[in-house]
Amino acid sequence: MRLKKLRYRSKLNCMPSYDVVEREWKIKVNANECGMNLPPMVEDRVMGRLSRIAFNRYPNEDLEQLMEAIASNYGLQKENVLIGNGSSEIIEKLFFAFGGRNLTIAYPQPSFSMYRIYAQAAEARSVVIELNPEDYSLDVRQFIQKVNDSKAALAVVCNPNNPTGNALTIEQIEDIAQHTSCALLIDEAYVEFYGQSATCLLKKYPKLLVARTFSKAYGLAAIRCGYLLGDKAVIDMVKKTFMPYHMDVLTLVTADTVFQMRDEYVPRIQQMIAERNRMTEQYKTLPGFTVYPSQTNFILVRCDLAAELNEALAAKGIGVRCFGNSAGLEDCIRISMGTREENDAVFAAIKAFAESEGQK
Amino acid sequence: MRLKKLRYRSKLNCMPSYDVVEREWKIKVNANECGMNLPPMVEDRVMGRLSRIAFNRYPNEDLEQLMEAIASNYGLQKENVLIGNGSSEIIEKLFFAFGGRNLTIAYPQPSFSMYRIYAQAAEARSVVIELNPEDYSLDVRQFIQKVNDSKAALAVVCNPNNPTGNALTIEQIEDIAQHTSCALLIDEAYVEFYGQSATCLLKKYPKLLVARTFSKAYGLAAIRCGYLLGDKAVIDMVKKTFMPYHMDVLTLVTADTVFQMRDEYVPRIQQMIAERNRMTEQYKTLPGFTVYPSQTNFILVRCDLAAELNEALAAKGIGVRCFGNSAGLEDCIRISMGTREENDAVFAAIKAFAESEGQK
Repeated sequence: MRLKKLRYRSKLNCMPSYDVVEREWKIKVNANECGMNLPPMVEDRVMGRLSRIAFNRYPNEDLEQLMEAIASNYGLQKENVLIGNGSSEIIEKLFFAFGGRNLTIAYPQPSFSMYRIYAQAAEARSVVIELNPEDYSLDVRQFIQKVNDSKAALAVVCNPNNPTGNALTIEQIEDIAQHTSCALLIDEAYVEFYGQSATCLLKKYPKLLVARTFSKAYGLAAIRCGYLLGDKAVIDMVKKTFMPYHMDVLTLVTADTVFQMRDEYVPRIQQMIAERNRMTEQYKTLPGFTVYPSQTNFILVRCDLAAELNEALAAKGIGVRCFGNSAGLEDCIRISMGTREENDAVFAAIKAFAESEGQK
Repeated sequence: MRLKKLRYRSKLNCMPSYDVVEREWKIKVNANECGMNLPPMVEDRVMGRLSRIAFNRYPNEDLEQLMEAIASNYGLQKENVLIGNGSSEIIEKLFFAFGGRNLTIAYPQPSFSMYRIYAQAAEARSVVIELNPEDYSLDVRQFIQKVNDSKAALAVVCNPNNPTGNALTIEQIEDIAQHTSCALLIDEAYVEFYGQSATCLLKKYPKLLVARTFSKAYGLAAIRCGYLLGDKAVIDMVKKTFMPYHMDVLTLVTADTVFQMRDEYVPRIQQMIAERNRMTEQYKTLPGFTVYPSQTNFILVRCDLAAELNEALAAKGIGVRCFGNSAGLEDCIRISMGTREENDAVFAAIKAFAESEGQK
């Protein structure tokens, strides 16, 4: 029987599909992952807890337990916490909650490329505020004005910003919170490498929301766990977009263990920051390279022949992120910080490319 | 600063919120979970694979691997498979794909209570077809007519049906597939306890979709994994509602191991079916109890004083599912099959209650 025309949700056909299967890289520095697996002490504890799970039972108290642990770390209540499958799902659902017909979501560009897709999925209108093309700084006054002029339901700032690496100060974020009336999401996926979190403003600005993830500084991209902090009234509304049992127990137990043992991560976060600073100085020595100061675990560089460089690295088994023709990111390559050895190897490969091109 | 009125998605405030935290039961037979944890051989393999995961890396080939394993089991291609966080998420996303303004989703009642919520979340109109109040049978001709009259975009049948336990034959499902033109989802969460799957109709009816889960017969409720089988064109559209990295690696690896070792589950599924049949006969001996024949891992019974019985069982630490005033399920209690000992203990407690009430 032939497939007759089915009736799908309007505009669903315009949405992209994702098949994320990557080639095997010798050095993978294209997704801002942490270069290291679990610290040994944490691994022992995680595996111990995983081995005691009742796989046959639906998730029960595990979610509340993690919510309480997170809340207490920030001096909040568990009602201020929402947990999702990565901060990705948190942001997706938040966009849905503040989306729909006649609702607008405003965010800077270039920034996390999924904001546009989440807005589209939520059937919301996107209003994009361009970053300064010179240094990717955000003109805060212009941002505030565009958010207000567009009557946005939600404004979003990724801080520090992916993929540009720079960050707003807490004073600048407070400035935005103070002079806009809509919900304001600060996406802090990389904040551990910056050190200045907007969570200190949560009590003062109940419209403020902060999204965090276990994927980057805590090296748990595989488990998909993130969370949202905010006022109970807002969290309650966003929670309505989550169906029951949306989190699996393995993820919850792993995230809870890592959260309890987060002091174990302080030295490696320091090390990643040190590596980023070291590599920034190294990349600055390359002629023809613009290196953008970074508060994250990656470095964005701009150079002629970015596409060719990307290919030359791929040929050596090194995966970096090349932005092709993405608006505002032409000729840009983003290099995540891996281990010290990986960072040195990537730099050596890039340097060799730059020198061979320089001799032509 | 006070929270000013934020602008949320229209009608989001009408959605319910879920906080599923349950009390500790001595015997928990209220959620149709499997009474047993992983079989020992499977547990060893699962824990071995979990211990080798790169927690710091985003999911990569694990999703494809499971899709391929599932596809090949059904003689399908991986393009015919969609994997989600439980068949819950699969159904939620499917409702979203066929929902939205002016779109209708049709399903019988009583059935899985979340259909109504998923339809509401998808901003779709629900059309409900009442089951025969005597025996919960579905009038297939009436179903077909209502689906067609309402110009439904999606029709849904839970088969075998939760919480009534009965099932349509494959011929009846084919009858529906043949005489409707919309997408048709068969939710087969309990099909392993029935043995007749609509997957054999997939190639003939490209509008047909079958949802399956690892939560019930495979005892993996904790990991949240389910899948959808269907025509590539339909799967491609539904896939657009899923964002990248929606599945975590721990879940994928566990599900893949269990799927590879699914022969290990044949004896325990047989045992659960035998227990269901044995207990059905037992419950039939209780005066005043109507026992509905079941093709699942639970039994629905109707009796006077269902609410009181529910409370009496709770007082003994036994959790069953009481439906209160749910339409068509008044005075009904659903009892999941646990271990043989649990089933006997639950029956003894119910019998004691029935006898003490009989003496009043």
